[in-house]
Amino acid sequence: MNLIPLIFFTFFCTSSHSQKEPVHSSNEASIIRSIYTKALTEGNAYEDLRFLCKEIGARITGSTEAQMAIEWSNKKMQSYGLETSLHEIQVPHWERGTKEVFYFKSSNGTHMKLRGLALGGSVGTNGMLRGDLIEFESLEALKSAKPSLVKGKIVFINQAMDAKQIQTFKAYGGCYPLRGNSASVAAEKGAVGTLIRSLGLASDPHPHTGSMYYAENIDKIPAAAICTADADQLHDFIVNNPKQDVELVMEMDCRSFPDATSYNVLGEIRGSDSPSQIITVGGHLDSWDTGEGAHDDGAGVIHCLEAFRILKTIGYKPKHTLRLVFFMNEENGNKGGKTYAKWVKENEENHFAAIESDRGGFAPRGFTCDGSEEQVEWLASLAPFFKDYDLHIFEKGYGGVDIGPLKESYPNIPLFGFVPDSQRYFDMHHSPNDVFENVNKRELELGAAAIASFIYLLDQK
Amino acid sequence: MNLIPLIFFTFFCTSSHSQKEPVHSSNEASIIRSIYTKALTEGNAYEDLRFLCKEIGARITGSTEAQMAIEWSNKKMQSYGLETSLHEIQVPHWERGTKEVFYFKSSNGTHMKLRGLALGGSVGTNGMLRGDLIEFESLEALKSAKPSLVKGKIVFINQAMDAKQIQTFKAYGGCYPLRGNSASVAAEKGAVGTLIRSLGLASDPHPHTGSMYYAENIDKIPAAAICTADADQLHDFIVNNPKQDVELVMEMDCRSFPDATSYNVLGEIRGSDSPSQIITVGGHLDSWDTGEGAHDDGAGVIHCLEAFRILKTIGYKPKHTLRLVFFMNEENGNKGGKTYAKWVKENEENHFAAIESDRGGFAPRGFTCDGSEEQVEWLASLAPFFKDYDLHIFEKGYGGVDIGPLKESYPNIPLFGFVPDSQRYFDMHHSPNDVFENVNKRELELGAAAIASFIYLLDQK
Repeated sequence: MNLIPLIFFTFFCTSSHSQKEPVHSSNEASIIRSIYTKALTEGNAYEDLRFLCKEIGARITGSTEAQMAIEWSNKKMQSYGLETSLHEIQVPHWERGTKEVFYFKSSNGTHMKLRGLALGGSVGTNGMLRGDLIEFESLEALKSAKPSLVKGKIVFINQAMDAKQIQTFKAYGGCYPLRGNSASVAAEKGAVGTLIRSLGLASDPHPHTGSMYYAENIDKIPAAAICTADADQLHDFIVNNPKQDVELVMEMDCRSFPDATSYNVLGEIRGSDSPSQIITVGGHLDSWDTGEGAHDDGAGVIHCLEAFRILKTIGYKPKHTLRLVFFMNEENGNKGGKTYAKWVKENEENHFAAIESDRGGFAPRGFTCDGSEEQVEWLASLAPFFKDYDLHIFEKGYGGVDIGPLKESYPNIPLFGFVPDSQRYFDMHHSPNDVFENVNKRELELGAAAIASFIYLLDQK
Repeated sequence: MNLIPLIFFTFFCTSSHSQKEPVHSSNEASIIRSIYTKALTEGNAYEDLRFLCKEIGARITGSTEAQMAIEWSNKKMQSYGLETSLHEIQVPHWERGTKEVFYFKSSNGTHMKLRGLALGGSVGTNGMLRGDLIEFESLEALKSAKPSLVKGKIVFINQAMDAKQIQTFKAYGGCYPLRGNSASVAAEKGAVGTLIRSLGLASDPHPHTGSMYYAENIDKIPAAAICTADADQLHDFIVNNPKQDVELVMEMDCRSFPDATSYNVLGEIRGSDSPSQIITVGGHLDSWDTGEGAHDDGAGVIHCLEAFRILKTIGYKPKHTLRLVFFMNEENGNKGGKTYAKWVKENEENHFAAIESDRGGFAPRGFTCDGSEEQVEWLASLAPFFKDYDLHIFEKGYGGVDIGPLKESYPNIPLFGFVPDSQRYFDMHHSPNDVFENVNKRELELGAAAIASFIYLLDQK
């Protein structure tokens, strides 16, 4: 059965249904107001996020903490009246280990300890690894370098995110290949290790980890990120001491284990009118193993959980089936998102739309749509409902990593991404600084209210 | 000479001038882009704010710190190429003193230390003050109370800011009379002291001070604010122990001194075309004596200083005279704003418009205009220039406390208020939590860039 034309038809033709049971703007405005009031005066979002961050903590795929988060989420969804299920997936299992040190030293005796983190997926150093250090200003510069310059050395790529970008995710996108590919590019030229400048905009002491990949048939060399403050200091030393030999000494005992069994957590409110048509709403439950995964993506899953709780609390009966999904393994493999998309297609489900929150728990700015012109137009038509709530971005844009694979199964499905303010996100992202204390209660609550209101308007379509 | 019609004419008729030297949208967009690039990649705002907060610190009117801030600002403006002057004003001088303690005790032996701050302008307790405590849920409830219920007691008004409001300044406005007037209302009914719940939205341990006033011919009684977390705990005890007598014991040695001499700090870039027409841009240099006045209003004055520095740096030659004013004494008397408005009118100056930043150093949302319909329409027409920079509020609204008195001298002058996101403001406002660490570098820089761009567009009018 080819579901695609049906889905497409569904999204644009429910207006006839709406005409049978008209919902007036004033009614919509009043429901949105009641959603915001619940979120801001009787909200559970902040306490639920506190529990996830402080009582469970960082929850990298395959860890005990990730499993505890799955079990807690399942019970929490049930306590809010959702029908839950756990969907088994197989996930990578990588561990940082206990040893992680980085030193820089020069021939004139300068020693400098660098604050660093192994990149997720890296091999360890198998004891102490040392090598002459060579700095490149960008991944492109490394790509252009002669292998003879790099062979046997440890490569340091000091590529900074572009502070001129107003949307910090664009600056991140510009540096993303650096983290993923630098080890393979360096190894191909004979390097023995690689250090990158952390992907963060501020000059600060927090190193940022994140996923990296090894190309096939190339030696796997250790890869780590050092904090931006130390990257600046290291760069300055190299520039100011051109006659000094510089050496990098590092040790990491991180390693990969066989794939582990894990789960996506699903919770549903069955639709009253078109129960077979599903709206997927979610974020990812896993996080990196440093910090507490508070903004990435604790805030996102709690946004969506709280949105469902509020819709239940105000007695809203959705027309479509609303399905909350806490995806596992967004950070290093996206097995949760891929397996979910495969599974729903195999089950011949009808998918109406999907919404993701994975850009942090900051003050809401709006929603973007990965969809057709008509779908984007519909999104733009929502702006008046949100004006009093300071949301103003309703335009074409990215959906999200977890819901992305749905597009392969259902090419015409609209994918909506929640857009909070992005300015502070990369101060925390993937670093020890991504902790509960750095999430503001009201900003988190406003995000949950915006998403609940958006689900409601989408369901009314 | 009556300047008013001239000013009005000026603001709306410069378009004929613009037609002589047309500035195309693409040119305007390019200048705005260069302003943002300067702010985000070669900005001084964050370091200047650090200095003001960390090397000078809290700077209440009449203090040595306030004087140091004046002298530093004057030199800093000069270093950025502005022609500066100090304008003498007389300001109130109130000091907190060293002793400030608040205890709650009940007849069953419960003791609880409360985290509080005297309100600015309060009298001291002249040693230990004790009295039975009586709680009211609001200032209105106290107003309705029989004097016999209040006489000889210490009044506790536990009125919370309304979390349902999306704009936190609206929630603040709803509680503002509580802080200013509760002591007089309580004293009129015979109370001996008053405690209010701090004006903050979060439940936290930071008490918030702020200005209070004594009505004429009413006894002056001590007034303080306790933190919201302690207000909640105190309330819970009273509700849960209805049979207990409850007593409040407090000591504060704050007091007022004779008025002191202080200064507004002015720095100008003379207009090339209409130098006699002035655009005033500013915020207030004074702060409360707790914390570091980082958001209130360190961020505001640094926004404006950085805007002028950037306009100078990119070589912009303004048509109108741009005057930067660091006002003194906004917090407890607004003598700076009042004296400035009086002085410019006495000097028969032409005032084209004024801009104020006094709502914190958060991510920019837009500008409001206290002005005529045409002036608000002009403001609304700017939205397209700022779309890529995420500003979206361009509407009628408040200008600011410091520039407010200009409206009395020039009724037709448009007053523009810079509007950053308001969600976190009242976590810091007037409390020990208003420190440099709570200002985000990029958010501050984006504010400076928005204000510089706005000044540029206004000057082009």
